[in-house]
Amino acid sequence: MSAKDKFLIGIDFGTLSGRIAAYDLNGIELASLEVPYPDGVIDQTLPGSSIPLEPETALQNPADYLTVIRSARELWEANGLDPQNALGLGVDFTACTMMPTFTDGEPLCFQDPWKNRPQAWVKLWKHHAAQPQANRINEIARERNEPFLKAYGCEYSSEWFFSKLLETVEKDPEVYQAADRFMEAGDWLVLQLTGEEKRGASAAGYKAMRTVPDGSGGWQFPGSDFFKALSPLMENVVEEKLSAPYLNPGEKAGGLCAEAALLTGLPEGLPVAVANIDAHAAVPACGVVSPGSVAMIMGTSTCYLALSDRFQVVEGACGAVDQGVIQGSWGYEAGQAAVGDILDWFTRRMTSAEVQAAAKKENISLHEWLSRDFALTRPGASGLLALDWWNGSRSVLMDADLSGMILGLTLGTRPADVYRALVESTAYGARKILEAFTSQGLPMESIRACGGLAQKNPALMQIYADVLGREIQVADSSHTSGLGAAMFGGQAAGVFHSMEEAAEKMARLQKRTYRPNPANVELYNELYEIYVELHDQMGRQENSPMKRLRSIRNRALATPI
Amino acid sequence: MSAKDKFLIGIDFGTLSGRIAAYDLNGIELASLEVPYPDGVIDQTLPGSSIPLEPETALQNPADYLTVIRSARELWEANGLDPQNALGLGVDFTACTMMPTFTDGEPLCFQDPWKNRPQAWVKLWKHHAAQPQANRINEIARERNEPFLKAYGCEYSSEWFFSKLLETVEKDPEVYQAADRFMEAGDWLVLQLTGEEKRGASAAGYKAMRTVPDGSGGWQFPGSDFFKALSPLMENVVEEKLSAPYLNPGEKAGGLCAEAALLTGLPEGLPVAVANIDAHAAVPACGVVSPGSVAMIMGTSTCYLALSDRFQVVEGACGAVDQGVIQGSWGYEAGQAAVGDILDWFTRRMTSAEVQAAAKKENISLHEWLSRDFALTRPGASGLLALDWWNGSRSVLMDADLSGMILGLTLGTRPADVYRALVESTAYGARKILEAFTSQGLPMESIRACGGLAQKNPALMQIYADVLGREIQVADSSHTSGLGAAMFGGQAAGVFHSMEEAAEKMARLQKRTYRPNPANVELYNELYEIYVELHDQMGRQENSPMKRLRSIRNRALATPI
Repeated sequence: MSAKDKFLIGIDFGTLSGRIAAYDLNGIELASLEVPYPDGVIDQTLPGSSIPLEPETALQNPADYLTVIRSARELWEANGLDPQNALGLGVDFTACTMMPTFTDGEPLCFQDPWKNRPQAWVKLWKHHAAQPQANRINEIARERNEPFLKAYGCEYSSEWFFSKLLETVEKDPEVYQAADRFMEAGDWLVLQLTGEEKRGASAAGYKAMRTVPDGSGGWQFPGSDFFKALSPLMENVVEEKLSAPYLNPGEKAGGLCAEAALLTGLPEGLPVAVANIDAHAAVPACGVVSPGSVAMIMGTSTCYLALSDRFQVVEGACGAVDQGVIQGSWGYEAGQAAVGDILDWFTRRMTSAEVQAAAKKENISLHEWLSRDFALTRPGASGLLALDWWNGSRSVLMDADLSGMILGLTLGTRPADVYRALVESTAYGARKILEAFTSQGLPMESIRACGGLAQKNPALMQIYADVLGREIQVADSSHTSGLGAAMFGGQAAGVFHSMEEAAEKMARLQKRTYRPNPANVELYNELYEIYVELHDQMGRQENSPMKRLRSIRNRALATPI
Repeated sequence: MSAKDKFLIGIDFGTLSGRIAAYDLNGIELASLEVPYPDGVIDQTLPGSSIPLEPETALQNPADYLTVIRSARELWEANGLDPQNALGLGVDFTACTMMPTFTDGEPLCFQDPWKNRPQAWVKLWKHHAAQPQANRINEIARERNEPFLKAYGCEYSSEWFFSKLLETVEKDPEVYQAADRFMEAGDWLVLQLTGEEKRGASAAGYKAMRTVPDGSGGWQFPGSDFFKALSPLMENVVEEKLSAPYLNPGEKAGGLCAEAALLTGLPEGLPVAVANIDAHAAVPACGVVSPGSVAMIMGTSTCYLALSDRFQVVEGACGAVDQGVIQGSWGYEAGQAAVGDILDWFTRRMTSAEVQAAAKKENISLHEWLSRDFALTRPGASGLLALDWWNGSRSVLMDADLSGMILGLTLGTRPADVYRALVESTAYGARKILEAFTSQGLPMESIRACGGLAQKNPALMQIYADVLGREIQVADSSHTSGLGAAMFGGQAAGVFHSMEEAAEKMARLQKRTYRPNPANVELYNELYEIYVELHDQMGRQENSPMKRLRSIRNRALATPI
């Protein structure tokens, strides 16, 4: 058995499935297995029940996560891998995906009578029933001028930890009181693997307000006064239900416990890294490991993660967390609320039967069909321009009530023209975010991309390079989060002394670099000026036509017919 | 033979066909026959030639118009009508559709060698190759402060008479010199029927600058200095090629000549009214015959015709002509460059295969499918608003370079939502035009509609009533132009003493009146305010985002790839 047989394991827990993968120390994927969650996203009725759930509810069953872990043995067997050759393991998870448990880590929803109460289940990242709670959190935090706010350029989101927790307190206080712990599902998973409750400081920073300086260079949660103001029941929530060691990405949570070793076939004591946020785990897999780099994780929405050696308040950043992405740097996060989602909306709802038939005939996807002519005409030739707010603006305007706009339509406008304008609008949105980063002092020497859109849509990537006027390199892995999780597992195991070293060994980039075309850059600069003007007019002006339109909508919906 | 057997004839010459119809004196259609033009719209090569025509060319063959006339005998025979019972005949025609002829009325294009020269054929209303000539006409007229301009709130159009004629002068001066006459095809048709060259003062007023006071209460063309400034060849164009009696709508051009009587089976001497413009002929058929009424002729585009007892300069009116529509009134014309065309663009290019399949399954048109839910939600409930400039703005902004815009799009936006927003945008455009009319003193006591959209889309008509906040009545005829032509024929024949009398007898309205719904009116008032704000920002502001976008487009199209 030689060193070349050794491997690292990354387990990526997504929205609908988990994926276990083994990588050699050069970052080559040796084997992988995707395991769908049997209960998927629970949004209609609880398992074993027929009581309908509230709208905007999105729950999960923690038993599904264990199903993924239990499949590990299949992976080794099917691929002739010796699990004893594993050197380390890392886990990444959607976030904030949180759950109540008893002291021993058993989920409330595994037990009667709690299993019939929605608040006892895992609340998935996209559970959106806690908007009223988020609103109140923002109101109270602003009134009290809570220092945690400074780390979030934006509103505290309804998707985040304390919004979801306050929802539980209000809707089912018995669940709140019965639960000994509330934790990220990623942390729970690591607890299952190691028997130790070591929590991710990253998720706690980006999602759970743990961004208040503790006076000795570390970080802590807001004080009990603040939580008491949210609800008297919550006064001591941190001490009672959240206190635990919080570790930075790549730190070792523990060794694989006997039970997990039995379940997976992996050696007991195998080093397991603390859990990480899925998008964040992708960052080192794009080779972004030190200040000056930014990673775009491009999918249905796009997540931007930039590294810097210091803290500053950055407009449009949804979170700034010390060591939040890579040890030794500050990690800044920003996001576009819809990117691939806008293109999917268009192909699903607004593309004619004629175009659909043409694409089918050539046996290519609608996206491919609609984008293949991009290189044949100059930017602006269709006369169209769009604002990319189909799902509101997460960055830089932080306003969920904004909406999309298309300008320049004529009787000659073709579906491919609109599709391109939508792609361009998301690229303008990207430029706005990256300009906010750089104009406020974040360095940006290189731009790296990963995710489905970056992998699958080269025409789109060329437009991004032209609009940004910057070179873009794309990760040469279609599962960057899992690869990154394995890299953090390697760091936790001491295989690598730093993520720089891990990235040097394991992160791969596509040979193709997207380079800006100078003639296009010039035209896009002019178009972007118009985008910025409309962005500021519609998005920043009090009472802009777009904002009034939304308020009329709300009134119209409330006026019975 | 009793009076009840008597009938009037209206012949409607459209873009692709002519339609002969007989109406009794109560306006009931007794029989009709549509005759397609064998050569249709000539835009590729001349008949009998393979030489390609210039882009934007749209010609017709006058022989096709005679084919329509020649079919009259079929109509009487197939329907058991005795042509001797005809009391009068009226003709309406697309305009400006113009042609060169010899003194006897023979078209140049009937003869060698002229038949091989494009300028010798009929130029159809939508022949758009004369834009450079129109530009120069506007420039020179403005420099000279020509009084004819006052009657056109707008630019003199490339579609109009002297633009087309100047094109001939410049592109083929021999055709210009060989032609003894240039005339509207409608006037040529009346010449064929009566043997007399009596021209329509209406088309001459709306299309051919005959709006200069002659000092004795009548009207004349601009002076020879102006035409000389356009081209020395044209100095005496009016005297040489246009002088003839100009009659108002409903005046008798003459009696049917022997040759035409033989051709049609109609009695020699049958009174024939002077030719009329097709949209204008529809006006009395909607019951619009006196000051205070406005007619909307709604189709691919919409034409607005309002009557008043005096002249004033009205922003957005494309023409103001004394007696131009109905004797005794000033007729004001305005237009929306695209209405049905926008909806067709959307259903053809932007409606998903899913929607198309659903409509097909229910065996209803896409328009019907997309509009059937309109009554289920309040205005504004989709959060969408559009500017209706898919084909530029003809009124009130007179700017062909403007373009369409949609605001408020979200991931939840459905095709039916966009369709409704497009319908609403055209209604806002209608309101803008009618407000320009009333705010500048034109009275508007009643609004009448006709045309394909008014007949076929009740959901759309209800939105118009709600947006305008006004009752709308719709003509109960699907061929209002032909009915109107017959009514003018009746006036010419002395069957009616006035168009008021003709309308009282022959114009029919649908029983259903579209009445504004007060709750909707209120919401639409608010939405219309936003429309007006965007209208003024995008359409009136120098260098608006929309205008800059168009100028970038023009540059991008000129930049080779």
